[in-house]
Amino acid sequence: MTSILPSDLDTDQRVRADDRGHVFHSWSAQALIDPLPVAGGEGATFWDYAGNSYLDFSSQLVNLNLGHQHPDLVRAIQEQAGRLATIQPSMANDVRGDLARRISEVAPDGMSKVFFTNGGADANENAVRMARLVTGRRKVLSAYRSYHGNTTTAISLTGDPRRWANEPGDGSVAHFFGPYPYRSAFHASSDEEEAERALAHLEQTIILEGASTIAAIILETVVGTNGVLIPPPGYLAGVRELCDRYGIIYIADEVMVGFGRIGEWFAFQAYDVAPDLITFAKGVNSGYVPLGGVVISDRIAAHFDTVAFPGGLTYSGHPLACAAGVATFEVFERDGILERVRDLGSRVVEPRLREMAARHPSVGDVRGRGLFWAIELVRDRETREPLVPFNAGGKDAAPMGEVAAACKSGGVWPFTHFNRLHVAPPLVISEDDLTRGLDVIDRALSAADAYAH
Amino acid sequence: MTSILPSDLDTDQRVRADDRGHVFHSWSAQALIDPLPVAGGEGATFWDYAGNSYLDFSSQLVNLNLGHQHPDLVRAIQEQAGRLATIQPSMANDVRGDLARRISEVAPDGMSKVFFTNGGADANENAVRMARLVTGRRKVLSAYRSYHGNTTTAISLTGDPRRWANEPGDGSVAHFFGPYPYRSAFHASSDEEEAERALAHLEQTIILEGASTIAAIILETVVGTNGVLIPPPGYLAGVRELCDRYGIIYIADEVMVGFGRIGEWFAFQAYDVAPDLITFAKGVNSGYVPLGGVVISDRIAAHFDTVAFPGGLTYSGHPLACAAGVATFEVFERDGILERVRDLGSRVVEPRLREMAARHPSVGDVRGRGLFWAIELVRDRETREPLVPFNAGGKDAAPMGEVAAACKSGGVWPFTHFNRLHVAPPLVISEDDLTRGLDVIDRALSAADAYAH
Repeated sequence: MTSILPSDLDTDQRVRADDRGHVFHSWSAQALIDPLPVAGGEGATFWDYAGNSYLDFSSQLVNLNLGHQHPDLVRAIQEQAGRLATIQPSMANDVRGDLARRISEVAPDGMSKVFFTNGGADANENAVRMARLVTGRRKVLSAYRSYHGNTTTAISLTGDPRRWANEPGDGSVAHFFGPYPYRSAFHASSDEEEAERALAHLEQTIILEGASTIAAIILETVVGTNGVLIPPPGYLAGVRELCDRYGIIYIADEVMVGFGRIGEWFAFQAYDVAPDLITFAKGVNSGYVPLGGVVISDRIAAHFDTVAFPGGLTYSGHPLACAAGVATFEVFERDGILERVRDLGSRVVEPRLREMAARHPSVGDVRGRGLFWAIELVRDRETREPLVPFNAGGKDAAPMGEVAAACKSGGVWPFTHFNRLHVAPPLVISEDDLTRGLDVIDRALSAADAYAH
Repeated sequence: MTSILPSDLDTDQRVRADDRGHVFHSWSAQALIDPLPVAGGEGATFWDYAGNSYLDFSSQLVNLNLGHQHPDLVRAIQEQAGRLATIQPSMANDVRGDLARRISEVAPDGMSKVFFTNGGADANENAVRMARLVTGRRKVLSAYRSYHGNTTTAISLTGDPRRWANEPGDGSVAHFFGPYPYRSAFHASSDEEEAERALAHLEQTIILEGASTIAAIILETVVGTNGVLIPPPGYLAGVRELCDRYGIIYIADEVMVGFGRIGEWFAFQAYDVAPDLITFAKGVNSGYVPLGGVVISDRIAAHFDTVAFPGGLTYSGHPLACAAGVATFEVFERDGILERVRDLGSRVVEPRLREMAARHPSVGDVRGRGLFWAIELVRDRETREPLVPFNAGGKDAAPMGEVAAACKSGGVWPFTHFNRLHVAPPLVISEDDLTRGLDVIDRALSAADAYAH
């Protein structure tokens, strides 16, 4: 970590005491964590009360696309708070309508309406609700190695270990294997073969689960926390085609990758497909105010023109959240954020990670797009044995802990998951900071190299 | 409605166009609604772009406890936005810890920790998750005539028609009848008998569902949207006793009634009981920023000291939301909000409603506490035939539509549900405005009287 700031250890102690005494934390064994008190942030950097600052290479939970304390977003929130902090969903509201229109303008043609929620989980819950009611079918297919949220249906869709302790949940979810060329479930030897075989597997799953029972297939366009899994060429187009053939709704979960993470408004736009429902959250306003939602195809929206949609929530279309979303659109357009992400990704991140992969024996694979990359760490490049086992905890996870600690001591706050280190900085990070952060990661990988043979 | 403001019909048209073109609304048939564009609000009043203002007698969705644009809450949001708009849940944060501590200080002894969510639905989802994991049991009992949120488990807990189109949902929920003296399911002739018989019914339900299968009983302390059903004396203490006897977790859903609605921090404090888990949202910060949560008994929290809690969300403990919550505590304490609610409720609202009930043949029952009251409208006071049928829509609901329209044309925005008109103004409403609003309701009831015999 880099000490550049005055320390305030009294406040640090007070914040720690309140936190440890009274805050129950997400996804944690409460006595085994030691949350860092954060004093402030700006752009790609945040700092604690001890005078340490960190380059935020995880954009918090991959939501802080415009970085900490972006002046335009802060101003938009302050102004909206002074105008009208909240109004119920049954009213019409200027910023709510403005944001909905802007979102529909960057969505595919024929997706005019937006249902706003508080976050990604309830966006997915409501998308599934729509798909079930429109099709009259109940089952939903989702991928292993996925995350879709923490409420009952959302966690049931999830294809990672966070689901396990929550089972049984929504009884009408079945999981299939998505493409993952580096660890192919289909024994494929190229991206093209992976796409083709993954589609054959998906079609077999549809047939065996019963096409007439399946309301929707939900997919993270680029799988996020579970590996930055980039869809191989043709895969998403093939999913679209299967959905059309079998009358299934295609839900694109864009919660983590929408709004610029890979240099597109919606990630599926890089793959020339259009889903029937899009779920979003996080990047829509960088999480400055909780917000999520569903972009709805006109065909699905029309179903609810005269039949009531049986879902809703007090804070749907919250003005304060929408104001931060409108400001996000203005910043993206004025500052050319999408172009910037594509440029930094292809010119700075990708060549550097490929070069690191060639040099570090612990790097089995690097993959990504825009400002969203995974470095997959292994003990052996031939066998591809992961640096730590799947879902490892405690001592088993120690090698990844060493890599993370090396990042932190170099002043980079990393995103690690299983045997992977993700590179997901705010989209506004300066090229200098991006390079400096990659330098730190480069050095931190020697901790992993020590385990590799 | 009262025309006091300049009109801005250009903006009105633009807001309507964006809304109708792009916003998908909660709980609605989209082509059959005509959302009112709201231009602004202050205290207990909001206004449209046509120059009409309304006394908000529904506090939006019974969330706006401190009224529109409360200067302390606005300032707290603006300051926090300028300091640190957001930080991930795994960090410690000053306002997050401050709010958690303040909540635990007003909660019963032995409830030290708070898990923050985005709203009431995910608060209930996570409370049920905790109860299931701590008990090792799965089933949850909830009441008919209840609302608990819109995600899969929350809507399954719900005991009103909003559940129907969402079934099947969480398969481990069973519904029982709660007390409702005016329409007793138990043929009781007094509040005391209603409590006694409702408890006997609940115990029978526990026995027949199998005590060893039941993780939790969830109850709105005062049933909100489904009737402002005040628990009769002894009922909640009896529920507590049954939970203790059978090893069941008692979850108090305080989403609508917590934080002052009936003049208590938590409504159950008026009935001398303490639950094991409390869920809250709405009033905690008047909905200025989406926020909800679960207050956790130390016994339940301790279960997750060394076992990971398998739930979480990106915006858990959102600093902007928590800052508005801290300001809420400061306003409540400085301005004596709880005392004010108890005073206005018993001195102004109750006598006036009882007087109206005596005079209007359409009023079958009035009931409530603090600033939360229901006027139950009937066609016949003897038979208690409701003014409109249960869950009526379209033409069947017309008499209630006339009452609502009469309120609006008198400048009061009402909360109506089935055959009831609720009185739920912001807790900061002036005594003059409160009296003026009750005058309007008094006159509006003549629309109902026309159907009564």
